Amino acid sequence: MPSHLALLSCLLVLLLSLDKFLLHYLKRWLSGGGSIIPRIPTGAFSPRSHRTMAAAGKWSETAMLIIDMQKDFVDPAMGSPMLVAGGEAVVPAVAEAVAVARERGIFVVWVVREHDPSGRDVELFRRHLYSGGKGPTVKGLKGAELADGLFIKEGDYKLVKTRFSAFFATHLDSVLKTQGIKNLVIVGVQTPNCIRQTVYDAVELDYEKVIVLIDATAAARPDIHLANIRDMKTISVETPTLEEWRR
Amino acid sequence: MPSHLALLSCLLVLLLSLDKFLLHYLKRWLSGGGSIIPRIPTGAFSPRSHRTMAAAGKWSETAMLIIDMQKDFVDPAMGSPMLVAGGEAVVPAVAEAVAVARERGIFVVWVVREHDPSGRDVELFRRHLYSGGKGPTVKGLKGAELADGLFIKEGDYKLVKTRFSAFFATHLDSVLKTQGIKNLVIVGVQTPNCIRQTVYDAVELDYEKVIVLIDATAAARPDIHLANIRDMKTISVETPTLEEWRR
Amino acid sequence: MPSHLALLSCLLVLLLSLDKFLLHYLKRWLSGGGSIIPRIPTGAFSPRSHRTMAAAGKWSETAMLIIDMQKDFVDPAMGSPMLVAGGEAVVPAVAEAVAVARERGIFVVWVVREHDPSGRDVELFRRHLYSGGKGPTVKGLKGAELADGLFIKEGDYKLVKTRFSAFFATHLDSVLKTQGIKNLVIVGVQTPNCIRQTVYDAVELDYEKVIVLIDATAAARPDIHLANIRDMKTISVETPTLEEWRR
Amino acid sequence: MPSHLALLSCLLVLLLSLDKFLLHYLKRWLSGGGSIIPRIPTGAFSPRSHRTMAAAGKWSETAMLIIDMQKDFVDPAMGSPMLVAGGEAVVPAVAEAVAVARERGIFVVWVVREHDPSGRDVELFRRHLYSGGKGPTVKGLKGAELADGLFIKEGDYKLVKTRFSAFFATHLDSVLKTQGIKNLVIVGVQTPNCIRQTVYDAVELDYEKVIVLIDATAAARPDIHLANIRDMKTISVETPTLEEWRR
Repeated sequence: MPSHLALLSCLLVLLLSLDKFLLHYLKRWLSGGGSIIPRIPTGAFSPRSHRTMAAAGKWSETAMLIIDMQKDFVDPAMGSPMLVAGGEAVVPAVAEAVAVARERGIFVVWVVREHDPSGRDVELFRRHLYSGGKGPTVKGLKGAELADGLFIKEGDYKLVKTRFSAFFATHLDSVLKTQGIKNLVIVGVQTPNCIRQTVYDAVELDYEKVIVLIDATAAARPDIHLANIRDMKTISVETPTLEEWRR
Repeated sequence: MPSHLALLSCLLVLLLSLDKFLLHYLKRWLSGGGSIIPRIPTGAFSPRSHRTMAAAGKWSETAMLIIDMQKDFVDPAMGSPMLVAGGEAVVPAVAEAVAVARERGIFVVWVVREHDPSGRDVELFRRHLYSGGKGPTVKGLKGAELADGLFIKEGDYKLVKTRFSAFFATHLDSVLKTQGIKNLVIVGVQTPNCIRQTVYDAVELDYEKVIVLIDATAAARPDIHLANIRDMKTISVETPTLEEWRR
Repeated sequence: MPSHLALLSCLLVLLLSLDKFLLHYLKRWLSGGGSIIPRIPTGAFSPRSHRTMAAAGKWSETAMLIIDMQKDFVDPAMGSPMLVAGGEAVVPAVAEAVAVARERGIFVVWVVREHDPSGRDVELFRRHLYSGGKGPTVKGLKGAELADGLFIKEGDYKLVKTRFSAFFATHLDSVLKTQGIKNLVIVGVQTPNCIRQTVYDAVELDYEKVIVLIDATAAARPDIHLANIRDMKTISVETPTLEEWRR
Repeated sequence: MPSHLALLSCLLVLLLSLDKFLLHYLKRWLSGGGSIIPRIPTGAFSPRSHRTMAAAGKWSETAMLIIDMQKDFVDPAMGSPMLVAGGEAVVPAVAEAVAVARERGIFVVWVVREHDPSGRDVELFRRHLYSGGKGPTVKGLKGAELADGLFIKEGDYKLVKTRFSAFFATHLDSVLKTQGIKNLVIVGVQTPNCIRQTVYDAVELDYEKVIVLIDATAAARPDIHLANIRDMKTISVETPTLEEWRR
């Protein structure tokens, strides 16, 4: 028994005398984590330390982007001119995809539009939709909220965009690359515009694997959805169903 | 007199039969403006229509950028590691500059940092400052608020950034260029980092006139402030005092 | 007195019934110039001074982008894996469109891919096409040259890109915006990838008018071409034939 | 039993006392690989395959950026208005730094300005320097060539920029990140403009280590050089001499 104590104290001394990495772990361990082992940073700055333990494994380099799942785009009750006809139907699939992502410890990013009431930060061809402080997905108005059944949880990330692509004039690539994210799973609306532009930009930005869940994305009409899926396949994008992806 | 009435009715008919531009003006005039004349859009989308009438003149192509005037940067009471030593002293000058800008109808943009509690969207070398959901200018915490005495008013624009330059991975250039902004007036903290990076990016992005108000910007020390002002002058940046600029 | 009123109303009617160009001049005149004659800039800040006098008129704010009209993309004799099936057929239309553009004094931009022999600057999913210093559109090799019948003339601009969109990681937007370009006419190959990505980016970047010449662009198959044209129309893109545009 | 414990603790101590490289391998091993031998990628997605075997080791994640070492900037014989007073003196140090980089298998990137003869792609405040098809570093003219003694070798990369920062509107970040480059060593001219802007952008883009060789970079005057070096140090940039770096 004394030898056990000796060993333990010896270990403690060694641990404390080691470099900043260990002090870093110890600090984290004392203030919350519970275990030192699974949190292995790739460097001094430990960009992935905020993620769950599950993410330290197979899914640590994957992020899910949920695009434009806001009331003005998918809830017919809003009467928005921006309603995507096929949008409401995929809300349950999107919710399910997010649940799978969380279970796997995948980094969850909610990409939303939030526009100035004047419309001065929206595409030129849509500015006529803004007047009197109202318009599609104006920041603070109901239409900009997530569709019923979808919620941002602690640890998720909310990213505001003002154009089609989630990468256009945003810090999305910055926040993904710095965490070592190499693979993207994309859900939401709508296929020919915001989904496709985000996907093509992701390929241009060298994400190694870009996955579009074919039944958790939607367009105004099925033929438009499928024509765009076909084009994306030709540039190496994978397009499984939610069921196929969750296996 | 009947001929007057005839003329007026004739004019009305003509006005109403003219194209969408005039209908647009008429609508605006009826719902607020008071005058048709000064609101002359450069095109169908009328990007400047949200601005005040004063801006339709000399200052319609100018925007003021107020950089990082947040408690964690300029309020010593916060005890933030990011405090800029010279920051508190320029708060009154910044407030005054904003007042002048509003008077002139200049587009006012509040550029602020708002970081994730995990610090995962901050520069690598500052991530150690974030733990337990706290750190400099974390979104929602007091340190991210504007310094006492500064307020965002209706018609102003708030822009969130995550790096030094207000243009890095943001839609600032998009929202300025689409409004026809060509000239920038820059105030805030701190000169060698966020001010200078914003200024150099503005020159790279071809803003025609970039003005730094020398006494409404600050650094940790006066010599650092002045060395950076000197460098900026060499690339065509103007550096008047607030008094000189307001004349 | 009534004759004065009649005169005034007459003038007002004339002013208001004229097109946006006049309004534009009127605005300039009100806000400083003193003359409504279009100000052709001269001297140091004269972004348009290099253009022909013809361009000072109606077409001074228009640029033509010719995308990827290189041998490896449109010349079957090259045997390139990147050959676009419908490409060769539109070479004459592209040549004709360029001729019309030059006649009108439109700024002509040749957008081409030129890759490192190693392929290290190409999309990840195409890197296997590069080995032994060879691969599609490698800088300096024959496949990177313009298709027979197409030539870069003095005054044209050559822009090298490494991804689909002509705007991705290039200074195209910089060189266009600084010249006051607001309208784009786009020709070349291929519709679902490089054409469409350039077009969507152009809309995101607030070019006021984006025109795709439907018979001077091509894809692997007509149905793919048309499905993409359909999508582009929904975001305000104009898609005339060359004949319609040249009228 | 105590001997088992002793063995285990001994192993643990060994593991923990080793450096970050081991932790890195351990992580890979835990999350899939099965082997802790560094995985040198091969095949289609093999971004580093073009580099030398030497680079597969310690320096495979480092690139050297040589900025603006062109005759118009550093050769007084050119009589260029863009001459950097301190530039010529550092040519030998730059050449030496490049030699060291090549020896180590570091990816060498020559960043140069090449402007249109019209000057339409240069900063607004410098356009008056262009006329008659001449001006600083015009593409194809002698002033755009590398300074005597500097050469681009096979395997190096040439990157053309049109503004201060090597990252502004170029595909530099794209070509570096896709090769797994995390550390940058920067040499060239001039410190307050092109060097500093490249450095700040590199920090904003999350390169893990940014090194400026203090005696292989230069400005118009030593005090300007040193003031900028001081500012860069405050944002985590390392500033060794060439001798210190080559050790």
